Amino acid sequence: MSLVLDAAAQDLLFRQARTANTFTDEPVTEEQIRAIYDLVKYGPTAFNQSPLRITLVRSPQARERLVQHMAEGNRQKTAAAPLVAVLCTDNEFHEELPRLLPHFPQAKDMFYAQRPVRERSALLNGALQAAYFIVGVRAAGLAAGPMNGFDAAGVQKEFLDDDHTPLMVVNIGKPGENASLPRSPRLDVDEVVTTV
Amino acid sequence: MSLVLDAAAQDLLFRQARTANTFTDEPVTEEQIRAIYDLVKYGPTAFNQSPLRITLVRSPQARERLVQHMAEGNRQKTAAAPLVAVLCTDNEFHEELPRLLPHFPQAKDMFYAQRPVRERSALLNGALQAAYFIVGVRAAGLAAGPMNGFDAAGVQKEFLDDDHTPLMVVNIGKPGENASLPRSPRLDVDEVVTTV
Repeated sequence: MSLVLDAAAQDLLFRQARTANTFTDEPVTEEQIRAIYDLVKYGPTAFNQSPLRITLVRSPQARERLVQHMAEGNRQKTAAAPLVAVLCTDNEFHEELPRLLPHFPQAKDMFYAQRPVRERSALLNGALQAAYFIVGVRAAGLAAGPMNGFDAAGVQKEFLDDDHTPLMVVNIGKPGENASLPRSPRLDVDEVVTTV
Repeated sequence: MSLVLDAAAQDLLFRQARTANTFTDEPVTEEQIRAIYDLVKYGPTAFNQSPLRITLVRSPQARERLVQHMAEGNRQKTAAAPLVAVLCTDNEFHEELPRLLPHFPQAKDMFYAQRPVRERSALLNGALQAAYFIVGVRAAGLAAGPMNGFDAAGVQKEFLDDDHTPLMVVNIGKPGENASLPRSPRLDVDEVVTTV
């Protein structure tokens, strides 16, 4: 009763959505990825810095190059998923700020002149955008399989450059047979929320 | 056409939702916060680590203690918002892992024995949960005003302890008059997504 979002949308995005480990063969199209991005790009980031970048690993050759850097338990599903996305941060995001934050172009130099400041901010805000992206994948009727188990330096060297830090790798597709483990317990609200 | 989520939900969560800087006087209730948490707690984190913790700053005394640590441009709106939440990470989240990840209790010691490893993982996964929380606030028909502009050490000392790192402060309520700036531009999909 306290939520305005309709129950079907609650189920689609959170209650029935599950991390998938197996997928059907149905392809994930460019149109779907564009529709997902064009929805979740509106999620807020600090100073609208929008540091998330996405590499879609589509060709068999590129998929093989990625799989070798995945943790052993993540290799088979990453090789088999209809689509795999490497999410990373652009640590030089401040170069775009005069365009992204036209009413406050000084933010580029006032807040983000130092690379370590940018890296932490890109990690925090890139992770916000990664979560919006996962929600967006679900909004497209697809399942996401986000993974942190990979050799980050290897993935960076293979697909990115020194200015881009891998955040996570996400398998994407329609869930297949036995796609998910039973749902693990969550913390109770009273363990997470305190009032002062 | 590529999204399954209905258009009203797309608008509520992303397209028409905006970061708010002013709010009406309408209170944000415990029931609303519980409903938000009980929806977004299902959002995925690595090993279900669920490191986000939320402090609701409700009493006038606590609000005053918080406002003094906010950046000047954030003080007035933080003092006036119906509810303010301090979002932080629990860097000792691994203590809960045997309960949160019953099928793989070794994760606690195999992956998270080292505090720096936990801190980075809590930052990444806590930020994912912060984004789910922002989406949840919107799902309740409320507006969020997330802020990074505050003295993190001051907020930590005032409300938390050495094991909890502030992530962001979020004003919450129904948007008031002139609540938002005009929407800033977003990067085009072709600037963000590349295919290999």
